[in-house]
Amino acid sequence: MNRLLANSVLRRCVINSCRNIAGESMLHSPEFSGAAVFSLKPFCPAVMARDPDFGNFEWRRMISSAAEPAAKAPSVKQADAGTAKKEGGDQVAVSSYWGISRSKPWDTYESNLSIDLSKHHVPKNFVDKFAFRTVKLLRIPTDIFFQRRYGCRAMMLETVAAVPGMVGGMLLHLRSLRKFQQSGGWIKALLEEAENERMHLMTMVELVKPTWYERLLVLTVQGVFFNAFFVIYILSPKLAHRIVGYLEEEAVHSYTEFLKDIESGAIENVPAPAIAIDYWRLPKDSTLKHVITVIRADEAHHRDVNHFASDIHFQGKELRDAPAPVGYH
Amino acid sequence: MNRLLANSVLRRCVINSCRNIAGESMLHSPEFSGAAVFSLKPFCPAVMARDPDFGNFEWRRMISSAAEPAAKAPSVKQADAGTAKKEGGDQVAVSSYWGISRSKPWDTYESNLSIDLSKHHVPKNFVDKFAFRTVKLLRIPTDIFFQRRYGCRAMMLETVAAVPGMVGGMLLHLRSLRKFQQSGGWIKALLEEAENERMHLMTMVELVKPTWYERLLVLTVQGVFFNAFFVIYILSPKLAHRIVGYLEEEAVHSYTEFLKDIESGAIENVPAPAIAIDYWRLPKDSTLKHVITVIRADEAHHRDVNHFASDIHFQGKELRDAPAPVGYH
Repeated sequence: MNRLLANSVLRRCVINSCRNIAGESMLHSPEFSGAAVFSLKPFCPAVMARDPDFGNFEWRRMISSAAEPAAKAPSVKQADAGTAKKEGGDQVAVSSYWGISRSKPWDTYESNLSIDLSKHHVPKNFVDKFAFRTVKLLRIPTDIFFQRRYGCRAMMLETVAAVPGMVGGMLLHLRSLRKFQQSGGWIKALLEEAENERMHLMTMVELVKPTWYERLLVLTVQGVFFNAFFVIYILSPKLAHRIVGYLEEEAVHSYTEFLKDIESGAIENVPAPAIAIDYWRLPKDSTLKHVITVIRADEAHHRDVNHFASDIHFQGKELRDAPAPVGYH
Repeated sequence: MNRLLANSVLRRCVINSCRNIAGESMLHSPEFSGAAVFSLKPFCPAVMARDPDFGNFEWRRMISSAAEPAAKAPSVKQADAGTAKKEGGDQVAVSSYWGISRSKPWDTYESNLSIDLSKHHVPKNFVDKFAFRTVKLLRIPTDIFFQRRYGCRAMMLETVAAVPGMVGGMLLHLRSLRKFQQSGGWIKALLEEAENERMHLMTMVELVKPTWYERLLVLTVQGVFFNAFFVIYILSPKLAHRIVGYLEEEAVHSYTEFLKDIESGAIENVPAPAIAIDYWRLPKDSTLKHVITVIRADEAHHRDVNHFASDIHFQGKELRDAPAPVGYH
């Protein structure tokens, strides 16, 4: 927990334009089910004072175990939707009638840091060049808006980066249903990508809080980008995946710049938030530098997956004709 | 493989109005990546003759291992999207440049057969009653169209049943990104439901083939249902989840009728297809009866999850306030 307290103090230095939200954002991290939040509230003050290891082990234990007791909790019968039993204050809703339980904790994995970061798909044809130019064009306003505030930049861009995987996965899922055909694992692969990008966002939100105008920007950008990508994916999956491939190349570049600023001291190398330590199975004394390094490796993996997907379409095949790269995350 | 051959002979008896597609549908099952199909093609004729166990073990081995060699295959360099190396005939696309590999096989699990099949949510308020009546109303044309052709009925209805989970999961994912908030695991829970329903469809397609007018019907129904459910979920998640809860109650009922017809001999109790044996970890001598039994247990689980989700909304809370039932599938 001393790490988390340190965060609250140091976080302000990470990116000067961004306000911090120590405890609050912790409660909002994806690993904290309502039950976990409930166990946390009464528990925190005491533990903060006496348990230096609370930041990772204690929380992990609570998170992975909290759901069970909550779900299997008290025995008051309730067929009535309106009277589900409450527990642990306002945050927790428990149904003791449906017998729903959370049987396993969230997924974790280790990032492949040996991945080639410099890999680049050389545009060879019109579609490639169109995708490449589009991404380069999109980068201009981004650079102007964020400059070197890489924390905010990463947080904001992850809200966009988590969209393509979800759109692609959903469209392949619906196609599989319409055509009565298998997907070759690509639905899972693309949804895994979307979830991984969302976890990047949840991690960055531990460190920086968006301002009101940044929240407004996210609303607008998501509305536009979701629909635009949806249409592009239907019209030309090869273009859609190529665009994502190039977007990820830019992401790798941005995170490399982020790391440079951490190494130069321009950005404070604060301790890694508990959510990142849990999700990537990092050592408990990890720092922001380690977190950005594994996130960059994830982006490089998505770059390869999407260029590969586009390549498959360029061969006049469907994604299901090639084995999907599932199981990285 | 003798089981598969037996299927081709017996399958015609399962549901008389439905034509069969022995080998073809096997090649299209979600477990067969392009690489698996490739290894299967040259391998089949010899093995069919001499390996009675080919139907499960051999296939399982090939599937879970086939992706690796395919992905790490030949060393021809290719930065050019247009020249990805082909292997194993027309079905397989391999990228030897991006180094994409499939690191683990598909997910499997064991259905919880101890689940209460008779559980019913008694409609208490307007939303409940509206959802209940809607589902009862939707059942009338379904009964008229399919009568007791439960194989076709199941296959067709699974193309619809796999939609709500995907819509809900996607909307929660986008909401999580917009609000910078965790989802309490509900994105994963709903996407797991969608994938499980899709696997039900992939299993039924092994046994029955849709006619041209049934395919046309699926196109229309998906177009209407996807958009309708999308709007309903945005307007009232509590109604959306309640409707799914009642739809699943009907599904449990239909599969119970299906089992009755199998027990009475009205529907031939053919051997279970390999995909079902793999997905649910069934004994290799399982039959259609075992498959329908585990599918029914899945539907009962989805019924409870969706009624639970609706209950949470009825408490004026968000899904993320309660631990999501992840990990059943």
